[in-house]
Amino acid sequence: MTTPKLHELGAAQAAVLLARRELKAEDLVRACLERAAARNEDIHAFVHIDAVSALAHARALDAGAVRGPLHGLPIGVKDLFDTADLPTGYGSSLYAHHRPAADAASVALCREAGAVLLGKTVTTEFAYFTPGPTVNPHNPLHTPGGSSSGSAAAVAEHMVPLALGTQTAGSIIRPAAYCGVVGYKPSLGRVMSAGVKSLSPTMDVIGGFGRSVRDAALLGAVLTGDMRLLAGHEHGTLRIGLFPSPSWPLAELDTQRAWEIATAALSRNSDSCQDVVLPQDFAELIQLQKDLMTFEMARSLSHERLRHREALSPQLVALLDAGMAIDGATHEAYLQRTADWRLRIDSLFERHDVLLTPSTTGVAPAGLAATGDPLFCRSWSLLGLPAVHLPFATGAKGLPVGLQLVGRMGEDHKLLAAAQRIHERLLY
Amino acid sequence: MTTPKLHELGAAQAAVLLARRELKAEDLVRACLERAAARNEDIHAFVHIDAVSALAHARALDAGAVRGPLHGLPIGVKDLFDTADLPTGYGSSLYAHHRPAADAASVALCREAGAVLLGKTVTTEFAYFTPGPTVNPHNPLHTPGGSSSGSAAAVAEHMVPLALGTQTAGSIIRPAAYCGVVGYKPSLGRVMSAGVKSLSPTMDVIGGFGRSVRDAALLGAVLTGDMRLLAGHEHGTLRIGLFPSPSWPLAELDTQRAWEIATAALSRNSDSCQDVVLPQDFAELIQLQKDLMTFEMARSLSHERLRHREALSPQLVALLDAGMAIDGATHEAYLQRTADWRLRIDSLFERHDVLLTPSTTGVAPAGLAATGDPLFCRSWSLLGLPAVHLPFATGAKGLPVGLQLVGRMGEDHKLLAAAQRIHERLLY
Repeated sequence: MTTPKLHELGAAQAAVLLARRELKAEDLVRACLERAAARNEDIHAFVHIDAVSALAHARALDAGAVRGPLHGLPIGVKDLFDTADLPTGYGSSLYAHHRPAADAASVALCREAGAVLLGKTVTTEFAYFTPGPTVNPHNPLHTPGGSSSGSAAAVAEHMVPLALGTQTAGSIIRPAAYCGVVGYKPSLGRVMSAGVKSLSPTMDVIGGFGRSVRDAALLGAVLTGDMRLLAGHEHGTLRIGLFPSPSWPLAELDTQRAWEIATAALSRNSDSCQDVVLPQDFAELIQLQKDLMTFEMARSLSHERLRHREALSPQLVALLDAGMAIDGATHEAYLQRTADWRLRIDSLFERHDVLLTPSTTGVAPAGLAATGDPLFCRSWSLLGLPAVHLPFATGAKGLPVGLQLVGRMGEDHKLLAAAQRIHERLLY
Repeated sequence: MTTPKLHELGAAQAAVLLARRELKAEDLVRACLERAAARNEDIHAFVHIDAVSALAHARALDAGAVRGPLHGLPIGVKDLFDTADLPTGYGSSLYAHHRPAADAASVALCREAGAVLLGKTVTTEFAYFTPGPTVNPHNPLHTPGGSSSGSAAAVAEHMVPLALGTQTAGSIIRPAAYCGVVGYKPSLGRVMSAGVKSLSPTMDVIGGFGRSVRDAALLGAVLTGDMRLLAGHEHGTLRIGLFPSPSWPLAELDTQRAWEIATAALSRNSDSCQDVVLPQDFAELIQLQKDLMTFEMARSLSHERLRHREALSPQLVALLDAGMAIDGATHEAYLQRTADWRLRIDSLFERHDVLLTPSTTGVAPAGLAATGDPLFCRSWSLLGLPAVHLPFATGAKGLPVGLQLVGRMGEDHKLLAAAQRIHERLLY
């Protein structure tokens, strides 16, 4: 089977064909490799591609039994995840020649499910704000967002149907929004973090990207081991909470328009949209997320801070110095406030099944020196709630824009089912 | 300064002398190296000692400014922590020649505070139950406990005043109890986990060992960045909750006697001891801890499970297989119950400042094929509460026995202050 658009197949669709043996893994992997070879020079989504190993793995899969839900699917892996067979650089020159001893747990789980690693995708420096070389596939003068820049761009550019990412502030949802793909950040604690460079363990979450909710859910099911994520559509009425958030005054015209489109479309069907009553002091979560991340990153990156300060970007050094100036008693107070908020936010979900809220202030900003503002993601990262970015509109300069849905802690399957239904309504 | 017993100095005492330049780091490090050289062949606490680097580091510290609270103190590091300068084996033949690219964050923080790494201490296989070669310093036919076997034994045998460990089920408190030293497990989330082999991130905690509460608190202050841990004694009345726990029927004679000694001693002073009202269904926490750990370890060790199954112990393989048979939906239910319990347990601390509860069923069991039962630690590991083991009595065959104190989430400074006061009352 060779269609000219094999690399454009979505993950879920390809998975069905692969499982039925109507599509060879080798053909799909080859198509994606060709696409990547053609486009990576412009987009710089991948920092490393291993075509030989990927094709060998694909052929082995074609020759054997169907391995699991990702059988034969090529994936991109953010270069913050350890890989035993591929160099792992964490977006820093410090680790230019680093070869970990083991795959990250999440990478190994994807392999176990039959995924083929196409290569490693660009991350910002230690998943903080200093960008790698990736450009936005929709306009090379604009940032793809970060820190999972390469994974979002690779999926947007059809180099791979799926890619792994991580989020501590806004590193999945923001690049998904800027690149116009679906990004899924699972509930905190559901995906094992072994072998992923640790930044702020109170908030670090592993997730990924696809071109549809169903595709992202397929990856999510493998990462969490929760097959309910594959169930798709739920019937019954959804109670959608409209949550423009206290940062709404900073939403730009494109995000405002996306909001209008979505609320108009969703009010035309049987689901109910209700304004969320803003919890008092909710706005303080943004600063709390920043402070907590600052403290924890400074300690987590202690080896790099102490031994290789000169190899770090000035922006990162400033963060680490600021973090070391915060003492552990203050950290404890942050953790306590975080725990209080996580408890308090849960009551919102007695009235709403999911929350609709902005992903970004607007479309991807011009320029490649920065990756945009995670403003609209920070609170949800702190709270540890599952989130999905839905791309459905086009803003300035043809750049994509969308909104995110946030679910109740642990209810990833309900969030993804709702996201699939809502996404369909917004797209058609 | 050369005293014949330099290696017996406690960490806090040595730290004062070192900071005043009344003791040379080189002399202290040399004394500990000599002690380790003399005793390690029998005890097998260290899997690797680097005398040359340790002495060079000590001399550099003597020649420079006082670096921090651990200036010049030799420490042992459990071989579950990555070290850039020393091999790191995680207690598995799989990693016999592994040399990580970076120090674990906690190791780097200790170095930053002036600590000198004497070497790596024995851990059980991936900190689970298959023992390394360490024997109990009080009787070589008995287990030192696990998984932080070497760290507890090295401190007990005066090879180092301090050592780093980790706990997921009972891996700090249990070996501390069996070896007769103080073990301190901080509140969940307060010590950054970067660079420590991840087993069950919902429960993994980094802590350590010393020969007094003050010594362990010194290490804890550096790990957490919370200098309140150094404050020591609190004045005012302590409300001690007596919590024999639902597992009390499994407490052996030695633990029963330790309990009698402690409750008698504590009732003779101004602090109040009150029986804790057992929360309903508290006993279920033990199974929940086991199940959660089983699910998470199976995923976290996916690389080893998939690529190197033949190099793992049968006991570990059985655990990993059991874990993979649990699905992610069940894991989510475990996480939810854990969150509910963490919330619910907090109300106990409205009536009690600290809880007194057994550390182990009794003294270290005979035999080196197993590391003893973490029964009395599992619930506290699941709940994420800070805990300290206090050694104060002698049981069968001259083996040490004691009890643990458990504090309120985040209140490590109060727990350590209480532990110091209570320990003094139990010892004298």
